[in-house]
Amino acid sequence: MSIKSFLIGQPIETEKEKHERLSRITGLAIFSSDALSSVAYATEEILLALVVAGAALLNYQMGIAAAIAALIVIVSTSYFQTIHAYPSGGGSYIVAKDNLGTNAGLIAGASLLIDYVLTVAVSITAGVAALTSAIPGLYAHKVLLSLVAIVLLMLGNLRGVREAGKIFSIPTYVFIISVFALIAVGLARYFGGDTAAPPAQLEATGGYIAIFVVLKAFASGCTALTGIEAVSNGIRAFRAPEPRNASITLLWMAGILGTMFIGITFLAEHYAIVPVDNETVLSQLTAAIFHKGAFYYLVQFATALILIMAANTSFADFPRLSSVMSADGFMPRQFGSRGDRLVFSNGIVILGLIAILLVIMFKGETHALIPLYAVGVFLSFTLSQSGMVRHWFRLRGKRWIGKMLINGLGAVTTAVALVVIAAAKFTHGAWIVIIAIPVIVYLTKQIKSHYDSVADQLSLQGRKRQVEYSHHSVIVPVSGAHQAVINAIRYAKALSNDVVAVYVCFDPMETTRVKQKWNTHGMGVPLIVLESEYRSVIEPLMEYIDGVRETHKGGVITVVLPEFVPERWWQHLLHNQTAWLIKGILLFKRGVVSTSVPFHLDK
Amino acid sequence: MSIKSFLIGQPIETEKEKHERLSRITGLAIFSSDALSSVAYATEEILLALVVAGAALLNYQMGIAAAIAALIVIVSTSYFQTIHAYPSGGGSYIVAKDNLGTNAGLIAGASLLIDYVLTVAVSITAGVAALTSAIPGLYAHKVLLSLVAIVLLMLGNLRGVREAGKIFSIPTYVFIISVFALIAVGLARYFGGDTAAPPAQLEATGGYIAIFVVLKAFASGCTALTGIEAVSNGIRAFRAPEPRNASITLLWMAGILGTMFIGITFLAEHYAIVPVDNETVLSQLTAAIFHKGAFYYLVQFATALILIMAANTSFADFPRLSSVMSADGFMPRQFGSRGDRLVFSNGIVILGLIAILLVIMFKGETHALIPLYAVGVFLSFTLSQSGMVRHWFRLRGKRWIGKMLINGLGAVTTAVALVVIAAAKFTHGAWIVIIAIPVIVYLTKQIKSHYDSVADQLSLQGRKRQVEYSHHSVIVPVSGAHQAVINAIRYAKALSNDVVAVYVCFDPMETTRVKQKWNTHGMGVPLIVLESEYRSVIEPLMEYIDGVRETHKGGVITVVLPEFVPERWWQHLLHNQTAWLIKGILLFKRGVVSTSVPFHLDK
Repeated sequence: MSIKSFLIGQPIETEKEKHERLSRITGLAIFSSDALSSVAYATEEILLALVVAGAALLNYQMGIAAAIAALIVIVSTSYFQTIHAYPSGGGSYIVAKDNLGTNAGLIAGASLLIDYVLTVAVSITAGVAALTSAIPGLYAHKVLLSLVAIVLLMLGNLRGVREAGKIFSIPTYVFIISVFALIAVGLARYFGGDTAAPPAQLEATGGYIAIFVVLKAFASGCTALTGIEAVSNGIRAFRAPEPRNASITLLWMAGILGTMFIGITFLAEHYAIVPVDNETVLSQLTAAIFHKGAFYYLVQFATALILIMAANTSFADFPRLSSVMSADGFMPRQFGSRGDRLVFSNGIVILGLIAILLVIMFKGETHALIPLYAVGVFLSFTLSQSGMVRHWFRLRGKRWIGKMLINGLGAVTTAVALVVIAAAKFTHGAWIVIIAIPVIVYLTKQIKSHYDSVADQLSLQGRKRQVEYSHHSVIVPVSGAHQAVINAIRYAKALSNDVVAVYVCFDPMETTRVKQKWNTHGMGVPLIVLESEYRSVIEPLMEYIDGVRETHKGGVITVVLPEFVPERWWQHLLHNQTAWLIKGILLFKRGVVSTSVPFHLDK
Repeated sequence: MSIKSFLIGQPIETEKEKHERLSRITGLAIFSSDALSSVAYATEEILLALVVAGAALLNYQMGIAAAIAALIVIVSTSYFQTIHAYPSGGGSYIVAKDNLGTNAGLIAGASLLIDYVLTVAVSITAGVAALTSAIPGLYAHKVLLSLVAIVLLMLGNLRGVREAGKIFSIPTYVFIISVFALIAVGLARYFGGDTAAPPAQLEATGGYIAIFVVLKAFASGCTALTGIEAVSNGIRAFRAPEPRNASITLLWMAGILGTMFIGITFLAEHYAIVPVDNETVLSQLTAAIFHKGAFYYLVQFATALILIMAANTSFADFPRLSSVMSADGFMPRQFGSRGDRLVFSNGIVILGLIAILLVIMFKGETHALIPLYAVGVFLSFTLSQSGMVRHWFRLRGKRWIGKMLINGLGAVTTAVALVVIAAAKFTHGAWIVIIAIPVIVYLTKQIKSHYDSVADQLSLQGRKRQVEYSHHSVIVPVSGAHQAVINAIRYAKALSNDVVAVYVCFDPMETTRVKQKWNTHGMGVPLIVLESEYRSVIEPLMEYIDGVRETHKGGVITVVLPEFVPERWWQHLLHNQTAWLIKGILLFKRGVVSTSVPFHLDK
């Protein structure tokens, strides 16, 4: 208990829950870390996809970046509409469920859950990569560093780190300002003719392969869009008028994201940056423009910080979505209960554990995790936008056709991007997500149907399941005649007049001794001796209990178990845990109640 | 259950236990595998200790071997006397405990338990080394091979591999015959002038260092004596007259062991064999004399087999000794219970697990494990022989002085060897054992004192602990008003007239609903609503129960818990396990009995 409170703090009373409302400035800082931080790896992913075809295709990077920037515009416009249509929070799960039905909602929900897990894994490993680019000596420990970061985030969130706006906005704005400075100086130098190296003269590459490689690079770059929907989930956190403030923040974020992404990609091309294993593209670019001085280290640490904050947003989103799905009966009820510090602890722990597993399995490599990432994100985009199309079609309010067309464009483009991503990245790991989503959907439906069936069986309406007990038999399994047993017998005699003690015989001599003692101390309760061919207590005892169940059909049997309670924990190891085993088995026998009469040892 | 019976077979009835009596021929095969197999590594250990000082000291090896051979003669003569004095089995634990008191017995017992664990680890890794010497491709997988061998031995022994004399004697005799053939041919070639290489001309080395290195080599070579006491543990397994047959077998074994050890060491010196990492000395020697033909492979496989059999003897000895110590109250009672197949399963499993841990920690290297090995063996030799000295002194039978002197010589020489081993090997790992032995002795005494105190507290003699219950309060914690709860209330009402239902309130709206339902369905049982500031069921409930304990001092409280029992295992995960937690906590409250009333879900 004290370890727990040292790690996560003292419990907080329920009534102390409060809500802080955010201005646009802090709102932008809090909700944009996930989206903006993706520029730390999105350009690199495009380059990595292109270099496999040799240097030849590297000059497609600006075209691909432009396509992705267009996608950013379309998707953010779509979400702008969602914010106004769902002012109380329009996550994909809710929008899809409301408009397209339960199945679409569950698919969106599963995609989002996967998306949140991958946000943690990708952001943390990318943040560590930013750090190890600046301090190469740490590169060998990147997996360990990632795990430490995830554990710290878990503990921080279990403590209930409030989204303390002002502190959290510092790294975001430092990141934005330093990246803009980087782009400005980089462009100035480039147009001043001062590039580190002239762009390589490139050979031409053949048609089909080129198309495939470019599509792959596009699919990789689409990770820049992850997190763009964050504002639409958190509308309620803004000051009034919430939808207006949230939607303006969204547009600002999209603008900053697009500018940074295009800027970095442009400079990476013209400074001829090529990805290497142990240093990120952003680190190489900053070093090329600024050399490794104070500003370089500022950019790297700001990048690492904003990536960790991006991971932190998932620690709010995942537990929140699972609690919503759990309230609907689609996730285990435990995800709906708040822990000591008023947070959904189970969701936080599960998220952290899965992310840790992913980081270990993929050896802390951001690049290896990316193929799993974009599928879930774009599937939830597509479902949410399709849901909005349906929404406008149903509602037919003012200018509904225009609004429907905008969301329709969003749905179609994200659907196309989804197909490209799934196809291009299928063998690199996207298949894992493509299998996982239907599996999760299936599980959520099984869970729901279990809860429905339990509610039905527990209902006091309609048929009654209770029968009148015709007879109450009490059985006391005993290991001899001693104080603990006599104690239990006395309790048993208070329950019913039909009490028997049952002794399982291994050794005839010992049995004779027990019988003699019983005659003196047994309080008149009959002692039944069972033979055990196989030296097991359980089997003969269960056979006997089944026999009693047969004899007194419709009766209830109480099995009273004398149980030792040692003073110290290690002493438990010195006693056979037969009582626990018996209780476990009895739980599955209908009409049998098990009772523990503890006997406390004094030393 | 079916996995278990597939792995270890169907349960065997207690009465089917039977005993096979052994002739000297099969007795030798069964009890000598541990001792004889040590020639596979003892010579190598001497060489390894000597080569660190350069080639200079290698010509001490015969002197060292001669000293160890003398030790073999002394120790086996001592045990010859032990066999006649303890015809029903004279293990060190029993001899030391009988003659020198409990502490000496426990020290001997702890030494032997450690010895058995190391026999498994050392023999298995040495057996794998014999195998990988013949098949070098397997060398990289030596740890895995060792673990597989240990697991197979565990399963075999859990199945209850009877010491099936005739089959088990084949590898022993193949090993004996092939090693004797090796020695005979080797000597013939050597004296025929056909050695592979002339012994190197050696430089002189300085005094103190030389003495220390030679003592270290002696300490290493002492592992040749491990297992020599096996016959004296198993006297009862021989045909009548047991002591005579057993003692003759012991002398045969000692003769064969001494001859093989001296022979191999002599040839190793004169064929100028020097230890290397990935091939054993025995393998090099066989290859030097016979080249790598059929005979070479026969020797290697016979060596591997006899080493595995040596490990197998520990799987009989460790569980047997722990069951004896458990019957005396010095080990947890679980070591005394026989499993499905009439073997002491817990001892077998614990032995296997510790050996696996050792093999992994020491990376499957026999040489790294050896320093831990000899300390325990020689400590138990010394205690057992000292015990015999005391025995003769007390008994003063025919020729007692002579007998006492023989065991006295054994005690003194093994004590000296023990000191040499402990000092020479201290920093190489012997310290682990030197710490472990007192720790184990301390634990065994704590266990004994716990069992004694329990027996005392359970005794029906003297003071009675039972008080008359002045009042029976029944408390039913409820999560609402539904079938499972109503079921439990009905059961509770049958126990006492003082029944209350307790509900912990999180949400005032929900509480109002529950109260209304309770008025209709509550069967007149009062519903007590507890407030929970911290969203925990446990704390307010326990406070309430403690309050009732205060009010009705000397009374008994029964807590009746309605418990869901889902149809399928995974459905358990979908329900809060609060009932289990409550039961666990209640176990530690005096005067509180907990009862589970199961409610079985149908689907």
